[in-house]
Order: sequence, then structure tokens, then C-alpha cells
Amino acid sequence: MVRVKLVVSYNGKNFSGYQIQPNKRTVQEEIEKVLEFLLKEKVRIYASGRTDAGVSALGQVIHFDTNAVINEKKLQDSMNALLPSDICAISVSLVDLDFDARFSVKKKTYRYNFYVSKYTHPIFDEFATRINDYANIELMQEACKYLIGSHDFESFVSKKSGKSDFVRTIYDAKIVDIDEGIYAFEITGNGFLYNMVRIIFGTIVQVGYKKLQPKDIERIILSKNRAKAGKTMPSKSLFLKNVDYSV
Amino acid sequence: MVRVKLVVSYNGKNFSGYQIQPNKRTVQEEIEKVLEFLLKEKVRIYASGRTDAGVSALGQVIHFDTNAVINEKKLQDSMNALLPSDICAISVSLVDLDFDARFSVKKKTYRYNFYVSKYTHPIFDEFATRINDYANIELMQEACKYLIGSHDFESFVSKKSGKSDFVRTIYDAKIVDIDEGIYAFEITGNGFLYNMVRIIFGTIVQVGYKKLQPKDIERIILSKNRAKAGKTMPSKSLFLKNVDYSV
Repeated sequence: MVRVKLVVSYNGKNFSGYQIQPNKRTVQEEIEKVLEFLLKEKVRIYASGRTDAGVSALGQVIHFDTNAVINEKKLQDSMNALLPSDICAISVSLVDLDFDARFSVKKKTYRYNFYVSKYTHPIFDEFATRINDYANIELMQEACKYLIGSHDFESFVSKKSGKSDFVRTIYDAKIVDIDEGIYAFEITGNGFLYNMVRIIFGTIVQVGYKKLQPKDIERIILSKNRAKAGKTMPSKSLFLKNVDYSV
Repeated sequence: MVRVKLVVSYNGKNFSGYQIQPNKRTVQEEIEKVLEFLLKEKVRIYASGRTDAGVSALGQVIHFDTNAVINEKKLQDSMNALLPSDICAISVSLVDLDFDARFSVKKKTYRYNFYVSKYTHPIFDEFATRINDYANIELMQEACKYLIGSHDFESFVSKKSGKSDFVRTIYDAKIVDIDEGIYAFEITGNGFLYNMVRIIFGTIVQVGYKKLQPKDIERIILSKNRAKAGKTMPSKSLFLKNVDYSV
């Protein structure tokens, strides 16, 4: 038996999320189907974590075990020939059996694309969420600083989470100027709760609109009260950028 | 009568180009329909130039004349409330009667988005064209230099053009590194021939693949022979970025 690490990118638009669900189109099912066809055995894949309906990945990491003989380059080519056009295998490599796509994760980085405009933009809106043109980017940048560190993020989690440990460590959080009029909120942490990035960004936007001050982020974290944070931003502009397994 | 200048952005995906054609969905028709409804008179709009089917615009410039009383801000809001989601009025302003969206143009800038990968990328491919991962970006950058200046571009024009004067002046041409893995070819000139940007970029790609050397661009220009240049790249990744009316 060998363990294989896959890095995949997918466009979340036409998926009901990553995880297999009956009668829904999911990333997991599409990949398992292709692997089972190629390797001629039952395959179960394990990802670094689920992504919700509509969320995309630039570099999701997955592992699976197989008794088949694996040629990494050939497997990647065959997967990409058979996978639907909204999933792509970015890399395929053999790894030690102690590598676990989920439990060996050290850091994950998410990106939330947005643009600043009074009107819905016919091009930008396909991959980014509009925020109003009176938003102050500098204040949003300042608010990001209050996220960094180890905090209890109960204020920024969907009630549907089912989790009870809300402490996560954020290593970096910032607004990145991508291209004329397009920005991204990028956040790196040791793990993220259900809807956490989308709720955090919804709160940062309130700082941009001056409905909150940057340092209010600290107060909202301490409140452990979901009602104090901003709304959950749409999933379409959220991207799992990469997963890091080194310290 | 007053003359109004519009800057519009549109997503070319679902249009049969800019210019009105019977039984086709066009940008011109959608804008004229909205203006006629709002101004309650027949309106004919004039753009800086046509864009082909599938080509998008970040800043296309249009003018029209009207006898209606115009409030620029209100007209922009009303237009954006009525226009389909793939067209947006970026600005509306009153201009002198000697301003002509087509004939006053000094410079136009086009952008062609591309990404470098062995496989079709599920996200990037929505707004950029794949070129193979063995392409050498530095050579493509070097090839761009040979475009700058006043040249006869007959080698880079579709036979369907119907034009006889092929001399155009290119002020700038370069490869821009947009974001991890995504690039753009940007070219600024006093005017462009039919399919010219897409054919020039198809030729630059051949330099990236080392099937041509950068200085071959000079030789291809001098040949005035379409067969010497590269293929016409797909329209979906071409954007009219802006039109400049100042010297």
C-alpha cells in the first residue's frame, strides 16, 4: 500500500461543496469516481478540510491510500484527462504513511476577493464580491491586525458549527491590492471554524463602512457573541488558497 | 442639444459583439434601448470602436447627443438600474460638442489575460487563456519591444478587415505579472486593426515556445504576410482596458 498526496484546484460555482452528499454534485465524489476508474479499486479520499457550497480552492490538499502501482506523472495526466473541467489535479506525489491531509495541517490560507464600487461590475462580480465605494481600505487593513494571535473565535462561527473548541491561531491577516479596483482579504491560521472567514470578512467590511472602529474587532472577539460580528459574506468569492504542512 | 460621454464596462461572454446586428444580442442595442426608455427619444450611440463577439471592456467610451435635460449622476444611477448585469455605466458626463468618442481617440489600451500551465485551470480559465508551462515569459517580454513604434501591421490583421491602411503606432507593449500564475499582455496604440491584438499575442506566444525568436517580430512585421504571424487567440480573454483622449 502507498499513500498519495494530491493538490487540487476546483471552481466551487457548480458544486454543493466538497463533501459527498447523496444526490448532490460534490468535489469528493467526482475525484473518487475518477480515481476508482483509474486504479480499479475502491478509493476513499481525505481532504485538509471541507469547503462549503460555492467555495473554490486554488490548492486543496487530499490524501488517499492505494494498492495500485502509482506513476505520479501518469496518474496526474490521466486524472486531468478524466476530471470535469471545474476540477484540476495541480500535483500528485507519493508521501510517507504518516502524512495525513487533515491532521498534519500546520497552516491554511484563505482568500476572499472583493471590489469597491457603487455598482455591480459586469466582470469583477464573477469572482469577487462588491462592497460600497465609501469603504475605507486603510481602516480595513488596520482592523486585520486585531485578528492576529490565538483567540476564541466563537463570535465568528455559524451556529450550525457543532464545535465547542473555538480557539484558533491566526498567523497573518491582511488586505492585498490585487489589480486595479480588485482586492483580497487574506488570512492564514492553524484552522478555521464553520463560516469563520466569511463572518470575519463581513465584520471587517463594517469597519470599512465606519460602522465599527478597527479596535472594535478586539471587543467583538472577547464578547464570544455571534450577534456582535458582521454578516456572513457570500461563498462565491472565497478561495482556499493553500494548505501548509511544514512548521 | 447636449453631448454625453459614457464610460461603460461589459462582460463579452454573452454578447455577439458591440455593434448592432439583427437578431443578435449586442452591447450597442442594450445601451440604446435603456437610453431611449430613459430619455424618451430615439438615441444613437457612438463608441470608440467595435469590440468582437466575446471581447469584454473595462472602459469602453461612447458618446451620444440628446435633447433631454441630463443630470449626470441621476442618469448613471437609472442606467445601472435598468441595464442587464453584464453592462455597467462606470461614468456619465456632459462634454463639448467637438468631443467624438471615435474620432477624438488618442490612445487605446487592450489587455489579454493568460496563465501558464500544463492543464486547463478550473478558475483561471474563466477569464484567461492557457498557454503551455514551457513558455518562457522573459522571451515574450523581450518580443514586446519590437512592437513599439509606427509600423505597417498587415501581417497581424484578419483578411476580413477590409482596411487598406495598416500603419498604426504602438506606444507601449508588455507582459504584466498580475497575480500568482496569471499574466496579461498589455498593448497601447493609436488604433488597432481587426483581430490585431489577438494575432499579435498569438505570435508573442510562439516566441514564448521558442518557435520564434524575439527579433523575428521585426521580420514578421516587414513581411506584411499574415501567414508569417501566429494564430488568432480566443476572444474570451481580451479586454478593452481604456481609451485615452488626452495627448
